[in-house]
Amino acid sequence: VEKTPNKKGQAVMTQDQTLFIGIDLGGTNIKGGLVDREGKIVSENTVPTGASEPAGHTLGKMTSLIEALMESAGGKVAGVGIGAAGQVDHEKGVFIEGPNVPNWKNVPVAREIQKAINRPVVLDNDAHVAALGEYAYGAGRGAAAMLMVTLGTGVGGGVVLDGRLYRGINNTAGEFGHTTIQHDGPVCACGRRGCVEAFIGTQGILRRAREKMMLDRNSVLHGIPPNEMEPRHVGEAAEKGDPAAQAVLRDIGEFLGAGVANVVNLLNIEKAVIGGGVSNAGEWIFESARERLAKDALTVPRGTVRLVRASLGNLAGIVGAAKLAMEAV
Amino acid sequence: VEKTPNKKGQAVMTQDQTLFIGIDLGGTNIKGGLVDREGKIVSENTVPTGASEPAGHTLGKMTSLIEALMESAGGKVAGVGIGAAGQVDHEKGVFIEGPNVPNWKNVPVAREIQKAINRPVVLDNDAHVAALGEYAYGAGRGAAAMLMVTLGTGVGGGVVLDGRLYRGINNTAGEFGHTTIQHDGPVCACGRRGCVEAFIGTQGILRRAREKMMLDRNSVLHGIPPNEMEPRHVGEAAEKGDPAAQAVLRDIGEFLGAGVANVVNLLNIEKAVIGGGVSNAGEWIFESARERLAKDALTVPRGTVRLVRASLGNLAGIVGAAKLAMEAV
Repeated sequence: VEKTPNKKGQAVMTQDQTLFIGIDLGGTNIKGGLVDREGKIVSENTVPTGASEPAGHTLGKMTSLIEALMESAGGKVAGVGIGAAGQVDHEKGVFIEGPNVPNWKNVPVAREIQKAINRPVVLDNDAHVAALGEYAYGAGRGAAAMLMVTLGTGVGGGVVLDGRLYRGINNTAGEFGHTTIQHDGPVCACGRRGCVEAFIGTQGILRRAREKMMLDRNSVLHGIPPNEMEPRHVGEAAEKGDPAAQAVLRDIGEFLGAGVANVVNLLNIEKAVIGGGVSNAGEWIFESARERLAKDALTVPRGTVRLVRASLGNLAGIVGAAKLAMEAV
Repeated sequence: VEKTPNKKGQAVMTQDQTLFIGIDLGGTNIKGGLVDREGKIVSENTVPTGASEPAGHTLGKMTSLIEALMESAGGKVAGVGIGAAGQVDHEKGVFIEGPNVPNWKNVPVAREIQKAINRPVVLDNDAHVAALGEYAYGAGRGAAAMLMVTLGTGVGGGVVLDGRLYRGINNTAGEFGHTTIQHDGPVCACGRRGCVEAFIGTQGILRRAREKMMLDRNSVLHGIPPNEMEPRHVGEAAEKGDPAAQAVLRDIGEFLGAGVANVVNLLNIEKAVIGGGVSNAGEWIFESARERLAKDALTVPRGTVRLVRASLGNLAGIVGAAKLAMEAV
């Protein structure tokens, strides 16, 4: 919003009407939104991903979705941002690979869509996008330095320093999930040992749930077929008062807190914003993460850091991707 | 160095003759130097610290040293930087406490010296100073993102991003020594468990030396009285071919590599520069640190990071402190 004086010298509001499109590529749906500079979603649309179709099919769907949003905006779209789980080459705009769209291998997403719509298109991974969204419009707003953590199958991360996503020299910075908190710990999906993700990614949570169930024959977790168990079952059981499930979440919080403390000591950040899946289950994770952080962070940075829950929920994907476009344009 | 055209249009060199003073406050000596913008030490001087004297005494010595250097520079000094081991409040220029000058508690160093010499004075801890020095003039030159590690009684660190020391929100960023690589590991001097420093600080090195000696009755380390042993004895024994001492250094390298890998994954840095005390002992630490880093760093950032030995040696204290002054002025 800019204020410009009118003829009488009074300030009048002239809205900056530039809009941006944010796209969230999920395994089931592609969600897209028209977003203004204040992070408000002006309009929204969803199409099925068709993840089992060839890459070209899904890319076509995505392009049509973007074109429809552009049309509804009447030409005021300045750029498009796309977030997707997996490995991306942000600089080249290439999607390398990821869990939601198994048929996508080295797809030059940005170039292909740019050809069709004649607007700048930028691509990044979902954790970077969430970091931007939460920083600009969510729980991280105004933080001078922030870590974003996304809990899911993997544990994603993003570091925002001095108001910008810190990308490092190859755009790979932010891999909080693959920082070690136990150099000889359990094996992670990445092959290393003792990564944060090995403890608090889906596999880590399920392993711990199995351990805790064994010690508590009354746990409601015994009612879930072992090969169907997901972290959300642990969250639901905890909400129902199941002590084993609550203990699992407290352990997750403890490992999360230990990992965050490393970043606090290294970077003296102001906020750690925790989002994604299991972060929505009550306060168990947050309480124990904060306790561990209070123990492990050094005195001065401990006094100023806050570990908070992400506030944008599922919208982080759209508004964060739009913010990605704003940063790039 | 600026080039300005003379009357005939030829470029002539006009040297920027501004000088900076860098001060290295050690436990035995205060070393000071006049340093130009290229990091060259133009002149140098040393006075005894008198660490057992009251703070005012040592502060007076330091002021006289600075005044003498200023006089020899003929008024061309633009600022003074001071580096000291310990806790400092960089913003206020206050030395809180540290091992080299036990009588210094909350000494407003910058203000006191500034009063006497009428030039900007800035203060920071020795690891930050070393990071600046190695980045500007040493092994980290030109790195777009760099971690400095100083091995000593404690393990210090500094992070240089986009050409500037990254300070965080309270100027405490860079505490690499207090990032955890084993959440349930040995207790560190800071009270936490499993910090990098607990493994590779002086106490960690000596603990490991005792363990390895026990397994090797022929180790020359048995010849050193237990309460006199220092990390340099381990380095010297390794140089003489002692297998136990070499194994200690390889272990140190392994822990160092695991810690550095965390920073590589989180920040996608270009260089990790390792300096201080035991880093000078042969290649054992470096070889095993690089091996561990190659295992633990993720594929893309692993391909571009280099773990290298610091190149300024003892001069890092003076030229780094001078660079601190250049950054501030």
